[in-house]
Amino acid sequence: MDSKLSFISTKLFEAKISKKLTFADIGNQLGRNEVWVAAVFYGQAKPEESDLKKLSELLDIPEKYLLTDFNDETYFPSRGRLFDLPPSDPLLYRFYEILQVYGYPLKSVINEKFGDGIMSAIDFTTNVEKTGENQERVKITFEGKFLPFKKW
Amino acid sequence: MDSKLSFISTKLFEAKISKKLTFADIGNQLGRNEVWVAAVFYGQAKPEESDLKKLSELLDIPEKYLLTDFNDETYFPSRGRLFDLPPSDPLLYRFYEILQVYGYPLKSVINEKFGDGIMSAIDFTTNVEKTGENQERVKITFEGKFLPFKKW
Amino acid sequence: MDSKLSFISTKLFEAKISKKLTFADIGNQLGRNEVWVAAVFYGQAKPEESDLKKLSELLDIPEKYLLTDFNDETYFPSRGRLFDLPPSDPLLYRFYEILQVYGYPLKSVINEKFGDGIMSAIDFTTNVEKTGENQERVKITFEGKFLPFKKW
Amino acid sequence: MDSKLSFISTKLFEAKISKKLTFADIGNQLGRNEVWVAAVFYGQAKPEESDLKKLSELLDIPEKYLLTDFNDETYFPSRGRLFDLPPSDPLLYRFYEILQVYGYPLKSVINEKFGDGIMSAIDFTTNVEKTGENQERVKITFEGKFLPFKKW
Amino acid sequence: MDSKLSFISTKLFEAKISKKLTFADIGNQLGRNEVWVAAVFYGQAKPEESDLKKLSELLDIPEKYLLTDFNDETYFPSRGRLFDLPPSDPLLYRFYEILQVYGYPLKSVINEKFGDGIMSAIDFTTNVEKTGENQERVKITFEGKFLPFKKW
Amino acid sequence: MDSKLSFISTKLFEAKISKKLTFADIGNQLGRNEVWVAAVFYGQAKPEESDLKKLSELLDIPEKYLLTDFNDETYFPSRGRLFDLPPSDPLLYRFYEILQVYGYPLKSVINEKFGDGIMSAIDFTTNVEKTGENQERVKITFEGKFLPFKKW
Amino acid sequence: MDSKLSFISTKLFEAKISKKLTFADIGNQLGRNEVWVAAVFYGQAKPEESDLKKLSELLDIPEKYLLTDFNDETYFPSRGRLFDLPPSDPLLYRFYEILQVYGYPLKSVINEKFGDGIMSAIDFTTNVEKTGENQERVKITFEGKFLPFKKW
Amino acid sequence: MDSKLSFISTKLFEAKISKKLTFADIGNQLGRNEVWVAAVFYGQAKPEESDLKKLSELLDIPEKYLLTDFNDETYFPSRGRLFDLPPSDPLLYRFYEILQVYGYPLKSVINEKFGDGIMSAIDFTTNVEKTGENQERVKITFEGKFLPFKKW
Amino acid sequence: MDSKLSFISTKLFEAKISKKLTFADIGNQLGRNEVWVAAVFYGQAKPEESDLKKLSELLDIPEKYLLTDFNDETYFPSRGRLFDLPPSDPLLYRFYEILQVYGYPLKSVINEKFGDGIMSAIDFTTNVEKTGENQERVKITFEGKFLPFKKW
Amino acid sequence: MDSKLSFISTKLFEAKISKKLTFADIGNQLGRNEVWVAAVFYGQAKPEESDLKKLSELLDIPEKYLLTDFNDETYFPSRGRLFDLPPSDPLLYRFYEILQVYGYPLKSVINEKFGDGIMSAIDFTTNVEKTGENQERVKITFEGKFLPFKKW
Repeated sequence: MDSKLSFISTKLFEAKISKKLTFADIGNQLGRNEVWVAAVFYGQAKPEESDLKKLSELLDIPEKYLLTDFNDETYFPSRGRLFDLPPSDPLLYRFYEILQVYGYPLKSVINEKFGDGIMSAIDFTTNVEKTGENQERVKITFEGKFLPFKKW
Repeated sequence: MDSKLSFISTKLFEAKISKKLTFADIGNQLGRNEVWVAAVFYGQAKPEESDLKKLSELLDIPEKYLLTDFNDETYFPSRGRLFDLPPSDPLLYRFYEILQVYGYPLKSVINEKFGDGIMSAIDFTTNVEKTGENQERVKITFEGKFLPFKKW
Repeated sequence: MDSKLSFISTKLFEAKISKKLTFADIGNQLGRNEVWVAAVFYGQAKPEESDLKKLSELLDIPEKYLLTDFNDETYFPSRGRLFDLPPSDPLLYRFYEILQVYGYPLKSVINEKFGDGIMSAIDFTTNVEKTGENQERVKITFEGKFLPFKKW
Repeated sequence: MDSKLSFISTKLFEAKISKKLTFADIGNQLGRNEVWVAAVFYGQAKPEESDLKKLSELLDIPEKYLLTDFNDETYFPSRGRLFDLPPSDPLLYRFYEILQVYGYPLKSVINEKFGDGIMSAIDFTTNVEKTGENQERVKITFEGKFLPFKKW
Repeated sequence: MDSKLSFISTKLFEAKISKKLTFADIGNQLGRNEVWVAAVFYGQAKPEESDLKKLSELLDIPEKYLLTDFNDETYFPSRGRLFDLPPSDPLLYRFYEILQVYGYPLKSVINEKFGDGIMSAIDFTTNVEKTGENQERVKITFEGKFLPFKKW
Repeated sequence: MDSKLSFISTKLFEAKISKKLTFADIGNQLGRNEVWVAAVFYGQAKPEESDLKKLSELLDIPEKYLLTDFNDETYFPSRGRLFDLPPSDPLLYRFYEILQVYGYPLKSVINEKFGDGIMSAIDFTTNVEKTGENQERVKITFEGKFLPFKKW
Repeated sequence: MDSKLSFISTKLFEAKISKKLTFADIGNQLGRNEVWVAAVFYGQAKPEESDLKKLSELLDIPEKYLLTDFNDETYFPSRGRLFDLPPSDPLLYRFYEILQVYGYPLKSVINEKFGDGIMSAIDFTTNVEKTGENQERVKITFEGKFLPFKKW
Repeated sequence: MDSKLSFISTKLFEAKISKKLTFADIGNQLGRNEVWVAAVFYGQAKPEESDLKKLSELLDIPEKYLLTDFNDETYFPSRGRLFDLPPSDPLLYRFYEILQVYGYPLKSVINEKFGDGIMSAIDFTTNVEKTGENQERVKITFEGKFLPFKKW
Repeated sequence: MDSKLSFISTKLFEAKISKKLTFADIGNQLGRNEVWVAAVFYGQAKPEESDLKKLSELLDIPEKYLLTDFNDETYFPSRGRLFDLPPSDPLLYRFYEILQVYGYPLKSVINEKFGDGIMSAIDFTTNVEKTGENQERVKITFEGKFLPFKKW
Repeated sequence: MDSKLSFISTKLFEAKISKKLTFADIGNQLGRNEVWVAAVFYGQAKPEESDLKKLSELLDIPEKYLLTDFNDETYFPSRGRLFDLPPSDPLLYRFYEILQVYGYPLKSVINEKFGDGIMSAIDFTTNVEKTGENQERVKITFEGKFLPFKKW
């Protein structure tokens, strides 16, 4: 278990391992995408009360316990702390390499299609699928709102 | 024009601007995806002779000129030099932020779906689409072969 | 003149100096805020055709010249390159110091007032005023749309 | 709770959460701005004895306890330690991005309006408001004394 | 023992030391290469169930214990964390120096022999041999699949 | 051509391209390994007079010209300057990743086989071969003298 | 001459060298401290029109030339760019070392003497004297206004 | 209390706070400058036995305890570890900024006054005074021996 | 005691302090140079069994204890971890400064005297002496085997 | 020739190469150590007028030319700029590695022999000799004045 994970994250991962559940299993129970669920486990997303109630049941973690840590009105996660850049892990590094090689090309095409602005990383979703003839290929989708730069 | 671009990249961009062509226009003529075409312009992909012949026609750059620089059997691009990390440009930074926030969740889900290995960034394609009710959302797809770690 | 400025930025600054115009003067003529106008000069904002026509007149730079560089449909600025962090200049450093000292407090208050999300830096404006009894104080305003994190 | 927070900061945050108080609530009780109050919680500002007495009452933390840690005549906070730059958290990063994009334009306009000098970050206040038609926009104000460079 | 090693890695090393076994000894028992076995000890490779059973016997560590940590279907190592770059250890630094001096020459020769692509570090093996007249020379072999860049 | 290459390196590469020679071709003519020849081209190795005479003939570069630059008794290359670490190029990065993942395992096995010391990167050779059933695999060999740490 | 110096700085240094003037000589003529004069030469301070007139005379550089570059109402220096940190030059490094060794002690004593605040580096002067029995010691004085942190 | 402080430093600070003593008070008792005393507290200076005896009395810390930690003949402090550069604390940063802005000017003036050499940071003293009409200004003095570069 | 020191290093230093022994004393007993002995204490050199037996006697640390930690056939130190670069300690920094100022001159002279190669840091010794008329000067000697670059 | 060398340094190296002189040859003519002479060539030491006169004769560079650049009373070199750390060149790196491995041991021994202070890098000399039975070993000596830390 990564020592940078918070106490509650560690608890969630341990429960998931002992229950032998995948993020896809949990996502199905919550009616949520598996990547978003994993983001909750890593402390990178803030679930709603209804998500927490289902998680509590599924993982046998007391509801009150999760509500205190995740749903408190005065608590908001400080995102992105877990991640070292450049990442040393080969799987994570490939994302980084894709940015280095295809970052400017993607920017050029987005600007041409949408104008002067950005793809939001907040009003944003991502998911992972198996694809290819033999399901041997990984397909990741990023989808975010285009936001034009304001002039004033 | 970015001063880190090579001489031939600068020539390609200038021709594209004076012809008022988008990467989508050029991609259609070449039978290639627009992001890959942009990658060629930025010196991040190595085109085939047939691609260069079509580019030569479309952009009025002498064929021989492009063949020498891009298709020589003893020349191969040194990729990724253009990109500073973390990127200062807001559009490029959003990709970086997505890694920081969703990197571990994506890794977890890929490992659960495919086992111990990575998504290749070499046997890999990416593309950009407009989506959403009012075509106001950006959709980027990454697709790469899953490679399992070898044991020996 | 900063050697990192682009050719067209340098031209704009030289014309502004020789005409002895402030950004406030130019902003008034364009019907734009002076900070946004300065952002255009530094290549950090993309003006509209109407802005460029007025700039052309005001600074005696041929209209066609500005339109080519700034308004081309296939060109979009790569923002943020000019700025070294931490900034060595004392005025610029004070902004950086404000982040270090008041960054978390501002985050806490924004999250309490608006929930889990961010202040957009794209759908965003900023301006500078003189304030205080003797106009001896600087007042800077940042104003941006609140964007809530999407769940999916 | 962030592990970089001091013991007394952690205590303050825990009391605030269990009392379900916002910084605005506490600020109203103290007759202080909510951002400054948050700065005290993060150990980035030094309160006066009267502030500590009110905090003690409001949060049920023994007065003596707070006085010892915050008001001792031989203790002064070492500010800014909490903050990593560039910040990985999306909300905090947006401030950083604003510096990268609008830093030089703001400097230019401040110099034009006030001359050769800086905006103080010490003789300085900041606050957060809701604005926009639907209160959907964040407005942050920075206000500091202008200090001219001395010649000698 | 390195404090960055995980708990299970530390256990494996301690058992290996008390049994006075080399990685070559263990590799022979497992039918695996000694470098790969060392990679398992450092948490850089994921063994199969059969490997773990043999390790359990050889090192007197309960089988169940190893299976839980290494073979769980929901756990995958985050590789590369142990290594600081540039490495301060003289033996490790020599590899780094070889990259600095011979990196581009190796790239040129690989590209000439195989075309535009890379040597996989995933579908990859490495081993160490003694060589030279007096067995006084170290011979390290890297062997990986060539992956050509995809065009699309 | 890489702008960090010296003038003489650039000349060598241009002659090699116009003669359509691979490093293997040149190595065969010189009776040298192709990687070492590439190292000479990149200014990372110092050839002997006999090597330079053959290079002069083969590439039609005046002998005197090469002797002055490479063989002067008062000139010695400052190695390793060309290489940025971590390398952004995917092929070069894979070497770096191999260090991160397999560096400690290789160190452990070398120490076990040879004792307390290092593999020399000076009294050292490296070469590249095609291997695998379909010649689709890259095989790189590093071979260097083992040097034991001196005690005194 | 340092290549990071601006054109006008280089001109000033060249004139100073050819006139064989020290900064003390120039300071005496201008009625300014020699360190401040050196700061002007390095582009780190903004002189007044009267300073420039005297400099023009003293160094035989046309007055108009200096006025344009230094006194323009729309130009303000971006300070601190010249300086790399940590400085490699031994004399400059000693200042840096003094901060590392005596920084916290100085902070403690300033806070004890003045309260919670800083010594201004803007409303600030510095000078250099010879001291010691044989004038063999360097004495540097920093003097700046104390600014207390504002509460609001 | 700063977690990077050693155990003995923490003890000294705690005793100083509970005794309500300033560094000036302690310096007076020891016949030492207050900045040097603060340097001892931070582990940046090595006191003599007589200093320790007085400190022991003044702070009610057993003499033997201090002698063991500070005066042992085989122990010498590793200076400068406490200090992060650039410092985030505003007071400490101002020193850093002074180097960036006035570093080269100070070097120039010192070299002109003394020749090719440095101001020693070892044979060195520093002190802090109140100055200005209303004692509202901070005056810091650095005084060190000039050391000329040796030629040989 | 430095917190980065290993457990066994800390033990050795504590024993040395309580016995009031210098490294010279210990070196004399072991028939080893004092710098090499200090390197053993810092975990930067691997002693032989005979060294450990003498150390055990001299410092009253059980022989078996030292043999397990230092002489095990499967354990080898990972050198260089203790050292931060650039070092903040003034004594250590002076070595670093010597490299910056005299590094290239030393390389030039070594290459002229020995040809294309390096001074080994493995087949290497170093020692410290007092020198000068009044024993007031430090003399450090580095001595290592010259290794010529291999050609192949 | 290294592009970071100043114009005058480049001239000196070119003359030295065309005259086929080693630094030892030049040192003998000047009555100076060869390392110090190399330091002058690299712009890391400031020669006296008599050195320059001899250099002028020896290298056929006009005396006045050298005097202007090196001996001017208002010019002093900014040392250390040439050197990147960590150095990529294998010979230079070995010095760096020696610091990492033997830095603390050397500090300990110097402190034990001399007390609390440093070896000066200013009142300092260094030289290179051939040693060993077959003159196959490099011997480098550093010699500098011990400076004790001042108390005040």
